[in-house]
Amino acid sequence: MKTDVTIIGLGLIGASLGLAFKNANLNGTIIGVDNDQQVVEKAIAIGAIDRGDSLKSAVVAADIIIICTPLAAFPEILAKIKPVIKSGSIVTDVGSTKAEVMRLFEQLPSGVWAIGGHPMAGAELKGIRGADSYLFENAVYVLTPGQDTPEHIVKRLSQLLTMTGARIQILDAALHDQLVATVSHVPHLAAVALVNSTEGNPDTLRLAAGGFRDTTRIASSNPDLWIDILQSNRQSIIAGLETLTKLLTDLTRQLASGEDKKLLEGLYRARDIREMIPQVKKGLLPGFVDVICIVPDRPGIIGELGRILGEDHINIVDIEILRVREGDGGTIRLGVPNLADGIRAVEALQNYEIKAWVR
Amino acid sequence: MKTDVTIIGLGLIGASLGLAFKNANLNGTIIGVDNDQQVVEKAIAIGAIDRGDSLKSAVVAADIIIICTPLAAFPEILAKIKPVIKSGSIVTDVGSTKAEVMRLFEQLPSGVWAIGGHPMAGAELKGIRGADSYLFENAVYVLTPGQDTPEHIVKRLSQLLTMTGARIQILDAALHDQLVATVSHVPHLAAVALVNSTEGNPDTLRLAAGGFRDTTRIASSNPDLWIDILQSNRQSIIAGLETLTKLLTDLTRQLASGEDKKLLEGLYRARDIREMIPQVKKGLLPGFVDVICIVPDRPGIIGELGRILGEDHINIVDIEILRVREGDGGTIRLGVPNLADGIRAVEALQNYEIKAWVR
Repeated sequence: MKTDVTIIGLGLIGASLGLAFKNANLNGTIIGVDNDQQVVEKAIAIGAIDRGDSLKSAVVAADIIIICTPLAAFPEILAKIKPVIKSGSIVTDVGSTKAEVMRLFEQLPSGVWAIGGHPMAGAELKGIRGADSYLFENAVYVLTPGQDTPEHIVKRLSQLLTMTGARIQILDAALHDQLVATVSHVPHLAAVALVNSTEGNPDTLRLAAGGFRDTTRIASSNPDLWIDILQSNRQSIIAGLETLTKLLTDLTRQLASGEDKKLLEGLYRARDIREMIPQVKKGLLPGFVDVICIVPDRPGIIGELGRILGEDHINIVDIEILRVREGDGGTIRLGVPNLADGIRAVEALQNYEIKAWVR
Repeated sequence: MKTDVTIIGLGLIGASLGLAFKNANLNGTIIGVDNDQQVVEKAIAIGAIDRGDSLKSAVVAADIIIICTPLAAFPEILAKIKPVIKSGSIVTDVGSTKAEVMRLFEQLPSGVWAIGGHPMAGAELKGIRGADSYLFENAVYVLTPGQDTPEHIVKRLSQLLTMTGARIQILDAALHDQLVATVSHVPHLAAVALVNSTEGNPDTLRLAAGGFRDTTRIASSNPDLWIDILQSNRQSIIAGLETLTKLLTDLTRQLASGEDKKLLEGLYRARDIREMIPQVKKGLLPGFVDVICIVPDRPGIIGELGRILGEDHINIVDIEILRVREGDGGTIRLGVPNLADGIRAVEALQNYEIKAWVR
């Protein structure tokens, strides 16, 4: 079936969707809309869209319209497109929260199907400069259809988005917002509170080791983007914060009253649950084994590790510098596809007098 | 001045201290004590100690005694050594909390100086197998002298420990415990609570992206080790949890009552404070610049990156795989010493048709 797609907003997500559809040989035309004419031209140049157009004429013939702008632009966009949008078309978006979007979509004429969308993907480089046809590969992509959306409509959008390599997950919009509050928005605010609890005291910060840096990394994100996300999911975040506060109050009471058995149970429970989190890297690279090695610090050492393992046809699928020391090398973690490769890698490295072991 | 050192407990920290002292040509004898005779022999074999001995005779002539066992063993060790320890000697330890240790040290005879110690260093491999003469290089090493400890005694211990490459920081024991509660113990419990707030729901965990994994990484640590740490710093942790709970309650109220300006101020404050955290890696490698590149997934690609940059004599000082895609490569961050090298690295990579840019 031919599917004409219109992408409104050619930033990182919009342009990457276009590239991914083209890459998968979409049968249909992709029209791009952006306020910035240079961005439209760049999107054509990199092959993310077939052509640009003004908002209204871009949506007239579209089968699927994907809004990839900030939420703040939605009311104006919807007001402009609703008189001209064709019956039977699908409108979706790519925002981080879904209940508010679904409410905004209610103004669309009947016969137009609204399905919220949230691809869980991002990149280092923002805007069209970061556009990447593989951005959604293996990413979870949540769709939140309305209750009256026919099965075949959801299926049509799912099929289009599956072309990007994303894994579609259908959820109710309100449930989606609760879940992302739990795994994203509340942890964000917890990181903010943990950092602010140091009051910026230099003595305190000097003692902050890797654990604190990991735990609070997200508190370095852009506050202006985050305030929008928090505002659009207020009720779910409030409920999530109340749950977190209750759990922390329980832990405080357990510590104060010596309920150490309960405290230990909580620590074990968290460790067990955490092991259930799907490991994206491990999912992508099944059977992945870690080799730890201690190497000297000299130009080309990382190339040398690659060469040593390459000679034995062992692929390095992941690499991480665990610790570095000025002038004296460091500890490196190498991911290899399986245990047999891990054992061969250790032998190969030891032949070069590099201390190595399988973790 | 000749300094005879006795290390009690030859695990990761004890054996690494011995190696570091020997590596720095300590003028004095290092005697090691461990319940496991095989560990003592291994410590001699790797050159971490000069000889082993029984607890009592090992401390008789020691100038500095470093207790590197779990806290639970301290009462028995102190009871055994206090009748034989020589006047003027220094006793220290390497535990994670300090007020309780300082209380235990009070039973030592007058004329023996007790100074708590907390090296902020760890390693992947536990026990003597992980022993590493560079473990403390550039690590913060906190010392907590008693109020009546003479300056020259603190200086003598500082000088010994500085041989390991550690950066000594003198703190009051109670203050140390408050600070580590803030940057380590409370964040640990917050991570536990965040994970437990998911209730292990698979739908929730499926949406957990990199941010959640970073924030909760420490919740995967060994619960049995952590319960000991929590027990030994109960009061400071309770106070820290109360501060955190109050901050979270403030955020909840701000969200509920639409105090969005205050909320945004909190996000900015956290970002600003977080930028003040000393970056260990960046401290070690001043001027460090990140180059991002997108590479195909094939055996030897990491070696190839090393070779391409090695040809231009550009040293890779840090490397991280930001994203991988099955069968299609990924995004890699390469740290190089300075901006000039970063620009040359981008040119070199682009000559090989690898998409790269300086972040």
